[in-house]
Amino acid sequence: MEPRSRGAAPGGVSVSAVLPAGGSGERLGGATPKQFCAVQGRPLVSYAVRAMERISWISDIVVVVSPENIETMKTIIEKYGHKRVTVVEGGITRHRSIFNGLKVFAENEFSSHLLQKPEVVIIHDAVRPFVEEDIVSKVVLAAKEHGAAGAIRPLVSTVIASAADGCLDHSLERARYRASEMPQAFLFDIIYEAYQQCTDYDLDYGTECLHLALKYCKTNAKLVEGTADLWKVTYKWDLYAAESIIKDNLSQQVCVITNVKETLAQVGFLLPESLKSQIKVEAISVSSSKNDSCLQNIISGQCYNFVCVNDKRWAIQETQELVDMLEKSNIPLLCPVVLILVHLDIPEYNSFSIGMEDLTTIKTFARETKKKNILVYGLLIQYK
Amino acid sequence: MEPRSRGAAPGGVSVSAVLPAGGSGERLGGATPKQFCAVQGRPLVSYAVRAMERISWISDIVVVVSPENIETMKTIIEKYGHKRVTVVEGGITRHRSIFNGLKVFAENEFSSHLLQKPEVVIIHDAVRPFVEEDIVSKVVLAAKEHGAAGAIRPLVSTVIASAADGCLDHSLERARYRASEMPQAFLFDIIYEAYQQCTDYDLDYGTECLHLALKYCKTNAKLVEGTADLWKVTYKWDLYAAESIIKDNLSQQVCVITNVKETLAQVGFLLPESLKSQIKVEAISVSSSKNDSCLQNIISGQCYNFVCVNDKRWAIQETQELVDMLEKSNIPLLCPVVLILVHLDIPEYNSFSIGMEDLTTIKTFARETKKKNILVYGLLIQYK
Repeated sequence: MEPRSRGAAPGGVSVSAVLPAGGSGERLGGATPKQFCAVQGRPLVSYAVRAMERISWISDIVVVVSPENIETMKTIIEKYGHKRVTVVEGGITRHRSIFNGLKVFAENEFSSHLLQKPEVVIIHDAVRPFVEEDIVSKVVLAAKEHGAAGAIRPLVSTVIASAADGCLDHSLERARYRASEMPQAFLFDIIYEAYQQCTDYDLDYGTECLHLALKYCKTNAKLVEGTADLWKVTYKWDLYAAESIIKDNLSQQVCVITNVKETLAQVGFLLPESLKSQIKVEAISVSSSKNDSCLQNIISGQCYNFVCVNDKRWAIQETQELVDMLEKSNIPLLCPVVLILVHLDIPEYNSFSIGMEDLTTIKTFARETKKKNILVYGLLIQYK
Repeated sequence: MEPRSRGAAPGGVSVSAVLPAGGSGERLGGATPKQFCAVQGRPLVSYAVRAMERISWISDIVVVVSPENIETMKTIIEKYGHKRVTVVEGGITRHRSIFNGLKVFAENEFSSHLLQKPEVVIIHDAVRPFVEEDIVSKVVLAAKEHGAAGAIRPLVSTVIASAADGCLDHSLERARYRASEMPQAFLFDIIYEAYQQCTDYDLDYGTECLHLALKYCKTNAKLVEGTADLWKVTYKWDLYAAESIIKDNLSQQVCVITNVKETLAQVGFLLPESLKSQIKVEAISVSSSKNDSCLQNIISGQCYNFVCVNDKRWAIQETQELVDMLEKSNIPLLCPVVLILVHLDIPEYNSFSIGMEDLTTIKTFARETKKKNILVYGLLIQYK
């Protein structure tokens, strides 16, 4: 994970994004379109939205879905607390859906939610959950300069042309060609002009926005080398692959926060020591000051998981404060942040028992924070 | 899974296979070349070898590995009991490795294992673990007729050509092009001739065998539409995807075998009843005859998992017989067969206890059969 987004868009332009999410997912071989399939319990489209959302300089995110999925999409936005998102009804093809998405910035056709027209518009797929600010930034900057830009990747297989008889006509020299991936970005006026001019044939059978910009606006897109994880979830097993990427990206850094007095419970200080051999650890005490600037720096600077050591009852309120800090910090929460609440039960000082009520409270709390991609676990240690 | 392989090769030709497995796995981002990475505890190359091996009409399987991995490959062959496999030292590029593999059928350079030259040779990747007899058969038949043939798939991304300035030159019309995949097959004399004639540049920078056959032997390969799971393990997450495919392919059919007398233990007969709601079940009794033709038919016809219900001590010998039958039947064991040994302890008839010795025996047995892709589990039920 990279540091949180700050400041203005690359090149100082205004930027919004359109995410076509109208596909039927035929190749996935299931009833649910792939963008709505769950990965680690969360729909794929939510990852793609989050990936855009955590880039602070993207103003609006337009998600284009087929009419029958509008309610589903609205539910997802509410459930995962997505912000800056507008849901738009798609057309029968990918290009028609993207065109509908662009119209929201330019026409009164969807007058109830006419959005501020951006200088640069990003087009990204709802089924490419892993897109980092770095590549989005590069593509936007290149689009500002060249009018259009898109991420590319080397070809994995040789590409061949077949003759009419189903035999090999010729194979392409792999080094000269690239796979066109997403994200792509365009000066809004260029791509909108291209869509307005293009034919029904283009809208129905084309797939490549860069091609439209070239054909109708004579704009040769700048090609930007992307990373391997830009790949598109296409087949059922890609969902498992996506899951494995998310697991691999869980932060390997942990911050241990304790409000336990040193003299009372050495365990709170032994923990960081024993963790240090396996993972990067920062240990801080928040017992002295609630608004510890050290904690604030940790939260806003880098992505950490947290272990909170307490000797009081389930400290939901303090945990809530930490969750709020995490949320406000705009830390990239594409991959889950793990929050482990360790409660030390020290009989001689302030013994307490855990009742059903506490368990219900913490379970409800954990369920709520999970929607924010923060996974809360509780652990009770009886310390004698 | 499909029924077991029987009979002669398609078109009555003699067929062998070459599997280049010399890649370094750079794109995977790990120290271990991807063909030696474990999926469900078993190296990827072993799946590819098994996929060829279970096709009875393939005579020899030549695996080409880099010099430093020859011992590793030999260990894998021994561990997983692969048959008909010859390990050959590869060259520094993919084409040079394939050429080395082909030489084993034609030259005395590797005289210690000169193999019978086949009419048709299959070339398949060690990192494409899922290849069904059906597509191999189609490609072989097409190669017999056309001299060369290869599996193809639709393109997932648009392919674009870049100009010298790193901008889009043109994009290819996706419908006219295909991704060239594996397996491919050739009349041996054609591909061998092509390799003998081709330049050092081809050997060092080329990747496409179909291209060599066209360029040097004027042979336009027949293109055969393959299934999605022919995809090549390229990135780390493809390993997870491969794992998920293997799990998905576990047979959903179970055969319950019992040697328990009906009157003694109804549980053996209640089990199939309760399973029937979730899975396809065949229940048979082997108490009457050991050479039950019904069991023989089940084993040789379709892929089943097995539940064996016993009221005796751990019946290793009988289980061994079942494993032997499975092996001899040449059933496709690319995906694991699960064998659950249920032992009913019925005190009033013949109570027995399980000692450490029994546990050790069954663990050793399970470890051995695991190499054959048969997973053995034991379950003791005390029945009162």
